[in-house]
Amino acid sequence: MADQNNDHLVHSDDPDHPANLIPSLCKQFYSLGWVTGTGGGTSIRKDEHVYIAPSGVQKELMRPENMFVLSYPTPKYPPSARQYIRKPLDLKPSACTPLFLAAFERGAGCCIHTHSQWAVLVTLLVEKFHGKEACFEISNIEQIKGIPKGPGKGMHGFHDTLRVPIIENTPFEEDLTESLEKAMEQFPDTYAVLVRRHGIYVWGSNVAKAKTQCESLDYLFQLAVEMHKLGLPWTPRG
Amino acid sequence: MADQNNDHLVHSDDPDHPANLIPSLCKQFYSLGWVTGTGGGTSIRKDEHVYIAPSGVQKELMRPENMFVLSYPTPKYPPSARQYIRKPLDLKPSACTPLFLAAFERGAGCCIHTHSQWAVLVTLLVEKFHGKEACFEISNIEQIKGIPKGPGKGMHGFHDTLRVPIIENTPFEEDLTESLEKAMEQFPDTYAVLVRRHGIYVWGSNVAKAKTQCESLDYLFQLAVEMHKLGLPWTPRG
Amino acid sequence: MADQNNDHLVHSDDPDHPANLIPSLCKQFYSLGWVTGTGGGTSIRKDEHVYIAPSGVQKELMRPENMFVLSYPTPKYPPSARQYIRKPLDLKPSACTPLFLAAFERGAGCCIHTHSQWAVLVTLLVEKFHGKEACFEISNIEQIKGIPKGPGKGMHGFHDTLRVPIIENTPFEEDLTESLEKAMEQFPDTYAVLVRRHGIYVWGSNVAKAKTQCESLDYLFQLAVEMHKLGLPWTPRG
Amino acid sequence: MADQNNDHLVHSDDPDHPANLIPSLCKQFYSLGWVTGTGGGTSIRKDEHVYIAPSGVQKELMRPENMFVLSYPTPKYPPSARQYIRKPLDLKPSACTPLFLAAFERGAGCCIHTHSQWAVLVTLLVEKFHGKEACFEISNIEQIKGIPKGPGKGMHGFHDTLRVPIIENTPFEEDLTESLEKAMEQFPDTYAVLVRRHGIYVWGSNVAKAKTQCESLDYLFQLAVEMHKLGLPWTPRG
Repeated sequence: MADQNNDHLVHSDDPDHPANLIPSLCKQFYSLGWVTGTGGGTSIRKDEHVYIAPSGVQKELMRPENMFVLSYPTPKYPPSARQYIRKPLDLKPSACTPLFLAAFERGAGCCIHTHSQWAVLVTLLVEKFHGKEACFEISNIEQIKGIPKGPGKGMHGFHDTLRVPIIENTPFEEDLTESLEKAMEQFPDTYAVLVRRHGIYVWGSNVAKAKTQCESLDYLFQLAVEMHKLGLPWTPRG
Repeated sequence: MADQNNDHLVHSDDPDHPANLIPSLCKQFYSLGWVTGTGGGTSIRKDEHVYIAPSGVQKELMRPENMFVLSYPTPKYPPSARQYIRKPLDLKPSACTPLFLAAFERGAGCCIHTHSQWAVLVTLLVEKFHGKEACFEISNIEQIKGIPKGPGKGMHGFHDTLRVPIIENTPFEEDLTESLEKAMEQFPDTYAVLVRRHGIYVWGSNVAKAKTQCESLDYLFQLAVEMHKLGLPWTPRG
Repeated sequence: MADQNNDHLVHSDDPDHPANLIPSLCKQFYSLGWVTGTGGGTSIRKDEHVYIAPSGVQKELMRPENMFVLSYPTPKYPPSARQYIRKPLDLKPSACTPLFLAAFERGAGCCIHTHSQWAVLVTLLVEKFHGKEACFEISNIEQIKGIPKGPGKGMHGFHDTLRVPIIENTPFEEDLTESLEKAMEQFPDTYAVLVRRHGIYVWGSNVAKAKTQCESLDYLFQLAVEMHKLGLPWTPRG
Repeated sequence: MADQNNDHLVHSDDPDHPANLIPSLCKQFYSLGWVTGTGGGTSIRKDEHVYIAPSGVQKELMRPENMFVLSYPTPKYPPSARQYIRKPLDLKPSACTPLFLAAFERGAGCCIHTHSQWAVLVTLLVEKFHGKEACFEISNIEQIKGIPKGPGKGMHGFHDTLRVPIIENTPFEEDLTESLEKAMEQFPDTYAVLVRRHGIYVWGSNVAKAKTQCESLDYLFQLAVEMHKLGLPWTPRG
């Protein structure tokens, strides 16, 4: 019988294969409070394939056979070839798909979307104190050295100001794509975009970089919320 | 020898069988702080049987043989047939039983009762600022999209206002039944009822829905408490 | 060779044997933040023996052979017979020993001592707002129903006021014994005594009761600290 | 083939061998939030070798073969002999190396560097309320008895004041060495140095002491932040 749904794409003994890695990462993200109640998602690009966690499932219980696989433009596949080449019949594709693809277009190998409460609270604090400003800023905290300054520019220095753009949320997740791409243009060095009252998208050239950058950012958002409670400014006063 | 206590009802190799699932769920809920110190409980309906965790036990240490089983009205069993068909001799049935049954009457397949501190704090904040009002309200937070608008109505939209009714606590848990059912009538679309200074009852048509809705609600309650500390309103000001 | 150090007392295949249970409980208490950095301790009485975790060890790494065993007065052993009948040579006995014994004298089968930060913060808040008062009080919270009203008196009701006496800390832990015993006399119904700027002692007739009461109390202390931050009183205003 | 990279130094069946212990400790520290996003580090000295976790890796995923090994001055190796005798080819040595060595010079057997948020917040609170003062101070909290008063001086008493020096952060971690050593001279009894807006270095004569002291300090920093939120002073008012 032919493998009509390309099931071979999600069968591997390698724990680092995307079909195995996405479930184990999501289980870890669940315990971090990033993907509570089916929220959030994760995607990995491997060569000409993009692997994506499905929509609406308990993220800590996913299995390799739940993965969607999308063909991804390379010499082998022209851009118009972007299409699902594996669809679990009983599941819905993630509404985050076009947002993950926007990151892959910028060279990402992995993109993580969380509903972290710290990310949400930071966007609310910026909204309250600075209006609909487009940016979270923090500096002079060691952990910002865990975030790159931009492609080919090395990591942030201790005295640098880390800037993470904030876009407004939309009723339908896929409608975030345009403003996400606009933020990526306005902040060409960023590896993350906050979504107000929603969460964050973080990406990196590989899984380790996306995950550790997501961790460092979440650390900084939590610290920023606690600093606000204690009356401590996020950047030294001018 | 006859299986006089219907022990066959709690013996299964299927990890998703209610007698196996309730202990594993309660262990997870323990680590989330939802069933600390024997508080809280969980019940699953499967066909003509309702499985219920016992009262007064360490929820993270439960075993399948600790489960109570109640016959549940179907064509096979008339309503008057609701009775325990399995009772562990050394344990007490849960005082939440009539409350779980009220959810099952509304079509639920699983009902979760937690003592989450975030749920308790939210009821205290509503009490302090709005008197004995019957409702927690929040809107414009992405995670509310994880909660259904009502039977057959799809999920909440980002701009919708999520409303969770609050009932007053009573000295004896079973005495909550009347006000719980009244709240269910007043809020026919709700899948959850908060109990002031006590916790929450959350239900869904199956285990996955009850659990993920309970997670999304708990996320929102925690966020709401943090928003209150930071002076941020739960719904945009009029 | 004779078993001169009574090693047979700590060798058992039963996971509920005190020599096995104390290490597994302490590992769990470590993850709850109750016995950080070698702080805190646990003791179980079984018939004519009292098992006690040693002093100054990493509580999450204890092994059965690390247990101290004390003979405990029964018809078989007169009160003067209280003496160590097993001492690991490379370890120090717990300074909490006389405090654990005070609980056993009141009929306890297990006594838990934690350095929980919530317990410490509650004693500091009572100190700040009520001076050196001897008592933490809370009522109208469902979780107080997890704490007994006193020997043979059943559990607290929802409207009852839970009172936990607070004693002043002393430079040497064993010097707490006198004031602990005095608090036990003044509050003959209590199953717990807070130690200001230090932590708490909780006991029960068996391990399950001591542990679940300790959990319920810690839940209430955490809730009380959060209520204080939110300007919510611990008991309804008169 | 010769073992040119001294791989035998990191192969052991003993779970307490430094090459096995550093990965297992770092996994535990990750779950405590101390080494989020590749931050922080750990080093153990064993006889004439110093084992050091590499830079920039996910600390919860480290393996024995990732360890750097440095020769350490003993009669066998003169001070000038300090050099890497094992370097994993694909990894970078930790920038913390000279700071770890400064602790080893003071007789330490293990040094832990964390980015704990509680440590960072404490340095920010001292900065805000006391300017660029060099010291965090707390007293009359039982947990300070888990910190030694100084080499050969026993542990802090309950009424003693624990002092942890704070040094200013520098853009490059290795540039902290001079001020760390200066703080060690000014506070010859300390087993820890806070780095403002960065984290902490904690050491002890062996792994158990370094780890439990690090835990006790982190407990105190968390408590101090909560006390500050509640308006409670860290030391009794004069």
